[in-house]
Amino acid sequence: MDKLADIGVIGLAVMGENLILNMESKGFRVACHNRTVDKVDAFLAGRGQGKNLIGCRTLEELVASLERPRRIMFMVRAGAAVDQLIDALEPMLEPGDILVDGGNSSYLDTTRRCTDLAAKGLLYVGAGVSGGEEGALLGPSIMPGGNAQAWPALKPIFQAIAAKVADGTPCCDWVGPDGSGHFVKMVHNGIEYGDMQLICEAYHLLSQGLGMSADQIQPIFAAWNTRELDSYLIEITADILGHVDPESGTPTVDLILDTAGQKGTGKWTSQVGLDLGVAIPQIAEAVFARFLSAIKDERVAAGPYLSGPGKAASQGSDGDMSAVVDQLEKAVYAAKICSYAQGFQLLRAASMEYGWNLNFGEIALLWREGCIIRARFLGTIKEAYDADPDLANLVLAPYFREVLAGAQAAWRTVLKTAVDLGVPAPVMAASLCYYDGYRCERLPANLLQAQRDYFGAHTYERVDKPRGEFFHTNWTGTGGETASSTYNV
Amino acid sequence: MDKLADIGVIGLAVMGENLILNMESKGFRVACHNRTVDKVDAFLAGRGQGKNLIGCRTLEELVASLERPRRIMFMVRAGAAVDQLIDALEPMLEPGDILVDGGNSSYLDTTRRCTDLAAKGLLYVGAGVSGGEEGALLGPSIMPGGNAQAWPALKPIFQAIAAKVADGTPCCDWVGPDGSGHFVKMVHNGIEYGDMQLICEAYHLLSQGLGMSADQIQPIFAAWNTRELDSYLIEITADILGHVDPESGTPTVDLILDTAGQKGTGKWTSQVGLDLGVAIPQIAEAVFARFLSAIKDERVAAGPYLSGPGKAASQGSDGDMSAVVDQLEKAVYAAKICSYAQGFQLLRAASMEYGWNLNFGEIALLWREGCIIRARFLGTIKEAYDADPDLANLVLAPYFREVLAGAQAAWRTVLKTAVDLGVPAPVMAASLCYYDGYRCERLPANLLQAQRDYFGAHTYERVDKPRGEFFHTNWTGTGGETASSTYNV
Repeated sequence: MDKLADIGVIGLAVMGENLILNMESKGFRVACHNRTVDKVDAFLAGRGQGKNLIGCRTLEELVASLERPRRIMFMVRAGAAVDQLIDALEPMLEPGDILVDGGNSSYLDTTRRCTDLAAKGLLYVGAGVSGGEEGALLGPSIMPGGNAQAWPALKPIFQAIAAKVADGTPCCDWVGPDGSGHFVKMVHNGIEYGDMQLICEAYHLLSQGLGMSADQIQPIFAAWNTRELDSYLIEITADILGHVDPESGTPTVDLILDTAGQKGTGKWTSQVGLDLGVAIPQIAEAVFARFLSAIKDERVAAGPYLSGPGKAASQGSDGDMSAVVDQLEKAVYAAKICSYAQGFQLLRAASMEYGWNLNFGEIALLWREGCIIRARFLGTIKEAYDADPDLANLVLAPYFREVLAGAQAAWRTVLKTAVDLGVPAPVMAASLCYYDGYRCERLPANLLQAQRDYFGAHTYERVDKPRGEFFHTNWTGTGGETASSTYNV
Repeated sequence: MDKLADIGVIGLAVMGENLILNMESKGFRVACHNRTVDKVDAFLAGRGQGKNLIGCRTLEELVASLERPRRIMFMVRAGAAVDQLIDALEPMLEPGDILVDGGNSSYLDTTRRCTDLAAKGLLYVGAGVSGGEEGALLGPSIMPGGNAQAWPALKPIFQAIAAKVADGTPCCDWVGPDGSGHFVKMVHNGIEYGDMQLICEAYHLLSQGLGMSADQIQPIFAAWNTRELDSYLIEITADILGHVDPESGTPTVDLILDTAGQKGTGKWTSQVGLDLGVAIPQIAEAVFARFLSAIKDERVAAGPYLSGPGKAASQGSDGDMSAVVDQLEKAVYAAKICSYAQGFQLLRAASMEYGWNLNFGEIALLWREGCIIRARFLGTIKEAYDADPDLANLVLAPYFREVLAGAQAAWRTVLKTAVDLGVPAPVMAASLCYYDGYRCERLPANLLQAQRDYFGAHTYERVDKPRGEFFHTNWTGTGGETASSTYNV
């Protein structure tokens, strides 16, 4: 065999192939393997032809073809496939060898694998990779976490292939221990769900709410992309809206079925938010919106039976439309700020829960370029956390709270317009409710606590007594005095 | 020893004690045990004095004091305590003996325990019990599911102690196999979270939004309780609002701290909805609202920095208030219908997923009396499912869709009022978004699918082609053609 490879990659789906080509383009020699071996041959004979690659038909070949300490990256489906790969590789490896899972594994799985493999002298890393197929090829955002001893050996490769911000800083740096890299990637994906749904709601309001066509909406998103909302998802939305189906001459977007698929990372984020006690309503609503989209037949059957507000409200003059579009831009930005605020609250909760000591400004920088949620806005978030690393909530950063104050009239108007038009805007609605809830010094939970005490003797604290002192009222004069402390209602 | 007991109950917190007293009052002899033995003595010397009870200081005593087949009910904290009890009891039991878990166990745990114990000849049942302390004493709703062979031996006791609807039908009947009883109880609790939060939002709008006092709001809830919203939770809300703190002469509700606790069942429901792919935004938003309530210090610190719409909008004449109150009643009812619709969609999904063959009309009847969500409304739901057991969604039942059509103008106005006043109404907002989403024949998920295809080559279906045929567009003219089918983005 010739020169050994710098790194091995297992899994030749689109992300794996593109990462390999990216690594190779930066001067690294890459050993490539795929369980279905035909894919190895096809890749080496196709996109990989003439490149500095080693095609490996077995794991043994892959392991034998690597420099030591070996660096092996998995780009395979999360779940059992990863454990099977680890089990298969482990007997062939030596202490100090490094395994990197570049898929969307559960951060809890990654934490478990880190611990298990550390006991065997192997260095395990869970690296979130975002950027889609193009990002993988040209420069993704990479979020590695796990066994920190692996980082010096991975850093030259990962930072070389990662996206760069304007000053050249790579969108890849060490996140923290355990499954923290995958956690950060999970939150990224949850935020991505929220962003995508928010864009869809804006599009829905403009298209079905105000009756605008794809080519009327296209320049609106293109214009937004030159201001605060400048971001990859807004940019591709403008591209998409401008794409015309070559056969029919119709805007392609109008031909696409409105049933969104998903791979589950938004669901995970929502469930983890629920577990960690963090309010992330915009992410959860975005997931629920995908669920509703998926039951297309049910919706089509229901439509004629469920009345809406009527079309009268949806007619506006062109002048009105222009006002709505301006308001909508502000509302989308305000909602986006709240969405990211929720995501960072989730990171903060995990950092405290697991002792990860996450650096929120650095995480914002990891997402500044390369990944799906890359946006100018993330630079502003980094500045906010750099200025105050202990910021209780992103919405409290001086810049953001001013934006929210300035946007709120428009934000409220847009939501009311959606309500009037019968256009569902669950993430937009959740964003404003979050803002109004978070700034509310007295929520109605006093009544809720009274209800819980009434039917379950759950007790409550009082505003006129010290915290930690609990009271029970015998609301009706009947009922017992037995404490409910040990019963789980 | 005297006559043997009909049933044993383990766990003497408030729910356990009250269930025991309820059983005893119906003529059953009950053996009582608690891990902390002092509680047994205290109970027998206190509320249990002179009753037809057997105090048991050990599990052995409990087992020895029971008629065969033995019927043993746990009223203990869900989780490890249940498994420990099962492990401790199992060697003392004989085939055909029955164990009933009356706590709020995870339905997956219950399914596992049913299977494990069936292999050993023991009959395991997970029975949801709702009604709070008063319900447990006077007649709860009981939702038993698991090993159906146990039902004939449990039915006489459980149906005797359960709440009854007007015609005498008990709010207790066999739900189905596995953890279906606990699943139904879990959904009950999720709906309860939604109901409670919805009431809080109405209260918040009236109190802080419109500046009404507790004694001005009290008659509003009392009046609602005479119409469609007639329910336990509305009734106790009126009671609570009328309760005055004896020391200060202030309405008690005004003295209660606005930080809601929770025991996790609403969280579970939300997580299960996410797992089963069912949109239950109102339950999730209710849970998130509790999370926001819990960070009281953060809210108080944030309040002064985050501006709201100002107080000007919140001033209305008395005439306006009366109109708002009428609209609010309609809006709360509409939102409640959507909340229950989501809960029943979750039951439907579980019934299909696990092959439980749930009877939705019967489940509505189980909740008609006794439990926390008991309401006149549940009789209407039962009628809807009796009329059409295959109803795709509760909102499509003729009665409910007419109510929603009649309420929607008020519903939209109320939400807009909350938005104008800066009063967070996340569950109310989620309800209208759900309605507008469910009736929407074309959602904006076409754009979302285009985005997913753009950055991840996820492919999409087309409205002008048969379902099941997938298309990929090379949106920018660059990028590869490698399919993403095996990569998990």
